[in-house]
Amino acid sequence: MIGLTGKGDRFAASLKQRRIELARLIEYPVVLWSGNANGRNFPANKLPFRASSHFLYFAGMPVINAAIRLDAGKLELFMDDPPPEATLWHGTTPSREEIGKAVGAEATYPLAELARTTEAATVAVQDLATYQRQREILNRTVGLSDERDLQLAKALVQLRSRHDELALAELRQSAAVSVKAHRAGMRATKGSHTEAEIRGAMEGVIIAHNMQCAYNSIVTVHGEVLHNESYSNQLQPQDLLLADVGAETQNGWAADITRTWAVSGKFSSTQRDLYEVVLAAHDRCIAEIHPGVEYRYLHLLAAETIAEGLVELGILQGKPQDLVAMDAHALFFPHGVGHLLGLDVHDMEDLGDLAGYEADRSRSDRFGLGYLRLDRPLQSGMLVTIEPGFYQVPAILNDLDFRSKYRDVVNWERLAQFADVRGIRIEDDVLVTDTGAEVLTAELPTEIAEIEELVANNLSS
Amino acid sequence: MIGLTGKGDRFAASLKQRRIELARLIEYPVVLWSGNANGRNFPANKLPFRASSHFLYFAGMPVINAAIRLDAGKLELFMDDPPPEATLWHGTTPSREEIGKAVGAEATYPLAELARTTEAATVAVQDLATYQRQREILNRTVGLSDERDLQLAKALVQLRSRHDELALAELRQSAAVSVKAHRAGMRATKGSHTEAEIRGAMEGVIIAHNMQCAYNSIVTVHGEVLHNESYSNQLQPQDLLLADVGAETQNGWAADITRTWAVSGKFSSTQRDLYEVVLAAHDRCIAEIHPGVEYRYLHLLAAETIAEGLVELGILQGKPQDLVAMDAHALFFPHGVGHLLGLDVHDMEDLGDLAGYEADRSRSDRFGLGYLRLDRPLQSGMLVTIEPGFYQVPAILNDLDFRSKYRDVVNWERLAQFADVRGIRIEDDVLVTDTGAEVLTAELPTEIAEIEELVANNLSS
Repeated sequence: MIGLTGKGDRFAASLKQRRIELARLIEYPVVLWSGNANGRNFPANKLPFRASSHFLYFAGMPVINAAIRLDAGKLELFMDDPPPEATLWHGTTPSREEIGKAVGAEATYPLAELARTTEAATVAVQDLATYQRQREILNRTVGLSDERDLQLAKALVQLRSRHDELALAELRQSAAVSVKAHRAGMRATKGSHTEAEIRGAMEGVIIAHNMQCAYNSIVTVHGEVLHNESYSNQLQPQDLLLADVGAETQNGWAADITRTWAVSGKFSSTQRDLYEVVLAAHDRCIAEIHPGVEYRYLHLLAAETIAEGLVELGILQGKPQDLVAMDAHALFFPHGVGHLLGLDVHDMEDLGDLAGYEADRSRSDRFGLGYLRLDRPLQSGMLVTIEPGFYQVPAILNDLDFRSKYRDVVNWERLAQFADVRGIRIEDDVLVTDTGAEVLTAELPTEIAEIEELVANNLSS
Repeated sequence: MIGLTGKGDRFAASLKQRRIELARLIEYPVVLWSGNANGRNFPANKLPFRASSHFLYFAGMPVINAAIRLDAGKLELFMDDPPPEATLWHGTTPSREEIGKAVGAEATYPLAELARTTEAATVAVQDLATYQRQREILNRTVGLSDERDLQLAKALVQLRSRHDELALAELRQSAAVSVKAHRAGMRATKGSHTEAEIRGAMEGVIIAHNMQCAYNSIVTVHGEVLHNESYSNQLQPQDLLLADVGAETQNGWAADITRTWAVSGKFSSTQRDLYEVVLAAHDRCIAEIHPGVEYRYLHLLAAETIAEGLVELGILQGKPQDLVAMDAHALFFPHGVGHLLGLDVHDMEDLGDLAGYEADRSRSDRFGLGYLRLDRPLQSGMLVTIEPGFYQVPAILNDLDFRSKYRDVVNWERLAQFADVRGIRIEDDVLVTDTGAEVLTAELPTEIAEIEELVANNLSS
C-alpha cells in the first residue's frame, strides 16, 4: 500500500520540474506504465511489486497497475480505484484523486481511458502482462527499435543520470539504512554458523526500516562466485565473508554496498595483504572522482593498482601497466569497477548500454574491459559505485588457455600461499559533486582495524 | 541456486511413490512446468523465483525454467544446463544429469525437446511467459475448462490433500521456524517504535534459517484491516499488535501462524476479555478435529463460540445459535476459520475451490459463510489452519444496512467500551491424524500469561 504522508507541495513541485525538463527534450506525448504484481503460487498470493523505474521517476511513488501520460510538462494519471468491497480486506487506500493531487496531476482517469492514447513514446516494462498491454494500446512494437522510444530513452538517460534533490534525499536514506545493515551483519558474525544467519541479521535491518532489498543479497564465504545467491554454507573461522547488500526506499531509490570481513574477527596476514590491495584501488579511484573524469580511467586505475599490489606480493610479475594492457589483472578482478546507481541498482540497465556508454562507444571485447558497465565522463549529480575486488575464480584460474597465456606473469606457487582468500570486494556509493565527490556510504568503515572492531563488538548498536 | 545435499535415495523413493499414485488416477501423460523468475527493474535483477507448487510436489525442489513429464509412474526431466560461461558468475551449479539423478528421473532432456510432447494434461502456472509456452506447446487452451486438465487437477487434489512423510518433514520445519519468528517478534516489541521493526525481527529469523516468507507478512496495530500490507504505523502502548507471518522451506512447504499481543506487554481488561473469546473458539475447534469431522462444522463452532462470548460480554444479545443463523457473528468475524495448508499457504487455491470444496458443494452467499475456503470432511494427513478472529472493521460496522439489520442484537454503547481492540486473530496449523489432531505450531503459546512473559522478556532467546 502506498502512503501519501510527507508528500507535500515540494514533492509535487519536484516531480513537475522533472516533467518540464522532459518536455524540453521530447516534443510528443509519453506514456509510462508502472506494471503489476504477479501471483506467487496462486493469484491472491502476490510476489513483491516493483514499479517500473521510469514510472517512479515521474510519479514519485509505486502506484500499482497505473500509467502516466506526460505531455508538454503536464501529467495525467490513469488508474482504477479499488472496488468498494476491497475496503474490508485492504482498509482505506488512497484514491485516484488523492494520488493525483499528491503527484500534481493535471487530470486523472480510469485505466480504460488509456486506450484512447495511441500516439506516444514509451519504455518497455519488465512485467510481461503490462508489456503486452503496452504493445496492444500503442498498436506497435515497443522498445529501442522504435525511433520515438529510442529518443525518449535517450532523454530519460539525460535526466536520470544526474540526481536532483528529491532523488538525493531518497538515495541518502537507502545508503544510511544499508550502512546499518552491514554493521548488523558484522556484529552478528560471532555466534552465527551459516551465511543465512548473517543475511537474516542484515536484511532484518532493511525490513525494520520499511525498505526492501534493491537486489538479491550476496552473503557468502565463497566470494569468488560473483553472483552467489546461495546462503547455505557453514562459516569456518578461517573464512572471509563477502556481503553485497543494499536497501531501496519505498519509492525505489537504491543503495549498493559490499564489505568483506573475517569470520573469526581477525584477518590472517594473507587476507590482510590482499584486502589492502583492494582497498588501495578503492581509495585511489574515489580520490580521483570529479566532474569530467572518465569512468573508464577509474576502472583502469583500479586495475593498475591491483596489478601493482599483486606484483608487490609476488603473485604477478612485470610492470603494472603492461600487466593491465595484457589483461592479467582480470585473472583476479574480472568485472568492472562499478556502475551508475539510482532507481535501479544498475541504473537504467533496462535500456541496455544506452545509459552506461557514451554515444559512439561500445563494449570492449577485451577480457579486462568487457564487463565494464559504465564508460562516460562523470558529471556532477551522477551517483556511481566504486567496487574493486580480488577473487580466485576456479573457472578462470583453471582455464588452460589462461594458464598458458599468463604463465610468465603469474607466480602460481606464490599464489597458492593465499588460498584463504577466495573473494574480496569493497564497494561504496559515490556522488559526483561540483567540486569532487561525496561518498554516501562513508559511515561504514573500510579499514581493517575498524571492521575488526565492529565484528568483535557484537553487542547491539 | 538449488542444493542436492541430503537428497538421497529416500527422497527419490518418496517422489517415485507420488508419481506411482498419480499414475493410478491419470492414465495419460502429464507435463508440469516450474516457471521462471521475472526481472525486477531490468532483466538481470530478478524477483524471487517461486516454482509452481504442482511441479514442486513431483520434482521435490525448485528447479528454475524446467518441466517434468510424468507417465505411468516414470519421470522425464526437461531443463537446460547453464552455458559454460555462467560458471564465472554463478559458480558450479547442479547439472541436468545430477538433478535428474536426485529426483529419480528415468531420462533427462534439453528443454527444447519438450516441443515434441503434444498430448498431455497440465496445470496453468502463474508465470505468464511460461503459461504462454504451455499453451503453445500443447497447442490448446490450458486450464480447468479442458477435460484432461480438470481430471488431472482432481487427481492432484486427491494426492496433495493428504501429506506424506516427505511433506510432513518439510512442514514441521517451516512450522518450527515460524514459531521462532513469532517469538522474536514478541521479544522485539519492547524497544520497537514501528510495525516495520517487529516485521524485521520476525522475517530476519526466517531468512536466517535460509527460508523465505510463504506470503506477504501482516504485522500491524490495525488488525482490522484483514490483509494489511503496510508496516508504517507507529506502535502506541495501548495497541494490540497482530502478526500473521509464516515461513516456507526452500522446497516450498508453508507454515501460517498468527498471534496477537499487547505492545505494552500487558493486555488491558477489554483486550483480555475479547482475546479469551477468540482463544476459546480456537481451542474448541482444535479439540474437535479428527478424521471425518466437517470443516464447515468447525467454522460454525468458532462462530457460535464467538457469538456466545460476545453475548457474555454484553456486545451481542440473543441466543448464540440464533445469532450465528442470522450471521451476526460475521460483523466481528467476517472470514472463514481457516484453509488447507501445504505447498501453498492456501493450498491448491490456484485450482479455485476444487481442493477446498467437496464435489457438489459451492460457496454460500451468506455473509457469515461465503468466505469459508474449506468445506470438506477432514481426513487423516490433511493440514489445516484454525484461525478465528475478532475485528472492528469500519467498513462493516459503519455500514447502514448492517446497522439496521443487526440493530436489535448489537449493543453499540457496550461495544464502544472495547475501542482498544481493533483486531485479534489466533492461528495455528493443525494436522489431522488417525486418532485426532496434532498442532504443528503448538510450541508457540496462545495463553495471555505466556505471551505477556515473552514480550516482557526481551533478551535474546
